[in-house]
Amino acid sequence: MKAKVHVMFKEGVLDPQGKAVSHALAALGFKGVNEVRQGKYIELDLDEKNPDKARQSAEAMCKQLLANTVIETYAIEITE
Amino acid sequence: MKAKVHVMFKEGVLDPQGKAVSHALAALGFKGVNEVRQGKYIELDLDEKNPDKARQSAEAMCKQLLANTVIETYAIEITE
Repeated sequence: MKAKVHVMFKEGVLDPQGKAVSHALAALGFKGVNEVRQGKYIELDLDEKNPDKARQSAEAMCKQLLANTVIETYAIEITE
Repeated sequence: MKAKVHVMFKEGVLDPQGKAVSHALAALGFKGVNEVRQGKYIELDLDEKNPDKARQSAEAMCKQLLANTVIETYAIEITE
């Protein structure tokens, strides 16, 4: 199975990368950009064939390594 | 509209972040992880109400700023 993981800053946590992108887009002349948020996207190719177990495994990986759950949230999508 | 942009290294381009995550997961005792690829995920909140124009605008942003098209690919999803 594949696990697709998005890690984003929680609402209210300052997102300096997003702010930098927002300012850079404005400097390049792009108008009408209200907000930019930047996060991480991680694709994991897992041996596990059971979707539930793959999700459990990906959850554990997020909690232990991929996300800092104090300031970040994660979303996991399991696909073939 | 919102534009959700994924930026990943092209196939064949060395992905040092993915490799580092892969090694760290192995060191933490996670087994059965074949491959890890890490990329950027950017959410843009745009004033534009027309989905086609929003996509055009996001495409231009990717080419000019968000992705280095020599070594990276991007995918754009437009939502409400």
